[in-house]
Amino acid sequence: MLPMSNNLKIPYGTKDFLPVEAREKRIIENKLAELFLKWGYNEVVTPTLEYLDTLTIGSRLDESLIYKFTAKENKTLALRHEMTTPIARLVASRLKESPLPLKLSYISNVYRCGDIQKGKQCEFYQAGAELIGENNAASDAEVIALAIEGILAAGVKNFKLSLGEVEFVKGIFEQYNISKELTEKLQNAMERHDLVSYENIADSLEISEEGKTALKEIPYLKGNVEILKKAYNIAVNSKSRRALDRLSEMRELLTSYGVDEYISFDLGILRDMSYYTGMIFEAYTAGLGFPLCGGGRYDRLLSDFGRPLPATGFAIGIERILLAKEKEHKLENKNSDIVYISYSEGKIKDAILKAKTLRNEGKRVFFALNAERKDDAENYKNRMGYGEIIYIA
Amino acid sequence: MLPMSNNLKIPYGTKDFLPVEAREKRIIENKLAELFLKWGYNEVVTPTLEYLDTLTIGSRLDESLIYKFTAKENKTLALRHEMTTPIARLVASRLKESPLPLKLSYISNVYRCGDIQKGKQCEFYQAGAELIGENNAASDAEVIALAIEGILAAGVKNFKLSLGEVEFVKGIFEQYNISKELTEKLQNAMERHDLVSYENIADSLEISEEGKTALKEIPYLKGNVEILKKAYNIAVNSKSRRALDRLSEMRELLTSYGVDEYISFDLGILRDMSYYTGMIFEAYTAGLGFPLCGGGRYDRLLSDFGRPLPATGFAIGIERILLAKEKEHKLENKNSDIVYISYSEGKIKDAILKAKTLRNEGKRVFFALNAERKDDAENYKNRMGYGEIIYIA
Repeated sequence: MLPMSNNLKIPYGTKDFLPVEAREKRIIENKLAELFLKWGYNEVVTPTLEYLDTLTIGSRLDESLIYKFTAKENKTLALRHEMTTPIARLVASRLKESPLPLKLSYISNVYRCGDIQKGKQCEFYQAGAELIGENNAASDAEVIALAIEGILAAGVKNFKLSLGEVEFVKGIFEQYNISKELTEKLQNAMERHDLVSYENIADSLEISEEGKTALKEIPYLKGNVEILKKAYNIAVNSKSRRALDRLSEMRELLTSYGVDEYISFDLGILRDMSYYTGMIFEAYTAGLGFPLCGGGRYDRLLSDFGRPLPATGFAIGIERILLAKEKEHKLENKNSDIVYISYSEGKIKDAILKAKTLRNEGKRVFFALNAERKDDAENYKNRMGYGEIIYIA
Repeated sequence: MLPMSNNLKIPYGTKDFLPVEAREKRIIENKLAELFLKWGYNEVVTPTLEYLDTLTIGSRLDESLIYKFTAKENKTLALRHEMTTPIARLVASRLKESPLPLKLSYISNVYRCGDIQKGKQCEFYQAGAELIGENNAASDAEVIALAIEGILAAGVKNFKLSLGEVEFVKGIFEQYNISKELTEKLQNAMERHDLVSYENIADSLEISEEGKTALKEIPYLKGNVEILKKAYNIAVNSKSRRALDRLSEMRELLTSYGVDEYISFDLGILRDMSYYTGMIFEAYTAGLGFPLCGGGRYDRLLSDFGRPLPATGFAIGIERILLAKEKEHKLENKNSDIVYISYSEGKIKDAILKAKTLRNEGKRVFFALNAERKDDAENYKNRMGYGEIIYIA
């Protein structure tokens, strides 16, 4: 194959979805949209373009990863890098008068430049839900149950959702009076899943051996509900214990939702602690090195927009779901449900009528655009893998 | 109401879709996706970001209307301003080996800065189809029939599709040996629907009175199939007459498609003549000052990408369909199909089970997140307009 001319290339980190993938993408998105509708999470659509100032209000992301440009307005525009902030803006502006709680959802493309690793595109698609206006175990559990049902509806069967609690970890750091600076270092190491650094920092602290042991225990507090009891013994402070009680209450509700088999506790997972304020979760499937879905409670963001309200939500990565499904079973060209309609010279009008009838019956029809011989039509149909041929002679 | 803080604003020409509109948008898009699938037009998804060089290859648009920015790669990136060019790129690259004809579709957001008039957003959504690899009346007719079925499927009933032919007009300009410069002036006036300028230019030409009359007749060549006969008498050149024969053949096929009632000929409509090479069309509905849909034959674009192939296609404006539907009947909040589930203290688990059952039956459920008294639940349900309440006591 000849090298592609420059004009045929697409920018680094972007992607073309050819028909097989694009169809699967639409199926996944519609399954999620249908689920969100059934759970009372109304979809909203916000602009791809926002003012940079808006996007960075509650941002967890390095600003250099946001695509920025200057339009005629003199204010810097940017491509949204996630959907929670635009929805917070909406809740604080056009939905200001709506009764609470607000249950909202989205299926949108978002953009991050430079953040390119395997599975991390510069443009990617997310489906997510936000529950705004409640802070209790019932809302945390509803959002987690919806995330799990979402992954299932999208077609991935083998996955686990790891559930943690920011306040649990925070309580332990406070229990040992660890300085703000060192707390941040420990958090960063934990967020990066860098256990070696985490343990080194823990060992370097000027605290009791018992304290060091407790800190080093955190990343290993993972498993089923039994782990909550173990954690209770380590955490001799009320903040951590309230967090554990909340997890325990959520777990009971999640059993009622019938999704407990997908849940495993992982008290060492941390997502940005300056942003999240309670439970946090990530869903993983075997063989994919990044989460299918992530979320948690973020009770501070809305106040940055002048409407202090608790909130919880999640985002599912559509491309990641696609990758996971491709691992479970290869996506296939579905030409076999297409009827090929061909015709001899002078018979095009009859063929059009036939195509119309079949489409009205819900059939997929590929209509030949030239009269052809029957054997040529048969050959073409076989080559394309169409399921059926109708030849109007 | 207090003025919104700057952080709550969105950029000029962009739009938030609140739940009622967002749901209608998804319904419209899915109806179109389903239709395209039935007609064998496979959906593709291309990146929002492309290299500016790619987008401007065959562009009909003033480059200043394209959003541009520089990323780390040093090559100028841009937001796509339409979908036909990215699809042409795809056909010339990753779909290079696919058998012809290629029938493709898309449902995508596109961007144009500064191009703001009523109904012209800086970001807007388009659904469209492209038929690549054929140049005959059958393919022109299929694309037009699909455009009409698309508008109908999207829910707009009252509209007309105006059908013209670039070659017809070109033939007449050539017939009177009008200079390139003056031809362009006439075309520009016609594209802008500026009849006064058009007639002034025609009158200023150094051609016979008969020629001037013929030119001034063009914008009035509109109506049903009878107009083609009238046009035949004016156009005493083979290029124009071939165009009329083609329109006549298409019209017969469109009658077989059962969509002739939506078609009216308008030989004076012009879309960019440097881009379109054959039939062109625009669909209008009463009370909306801009087309719902536009399209035509563009046989030159693909060769700009190194794969010379004839092509024809159209784009439907999703927001315009929404506006047209709002004119036909106001969009309504569909809360009446929601069941509100509420519960007394200690009954949340039973309520969760009930919600699960109802959702499995396909019902939409809004689940209360706190125990409440029955009369409070009733009040909330009535205030929200939910169709039903189930209270677990």
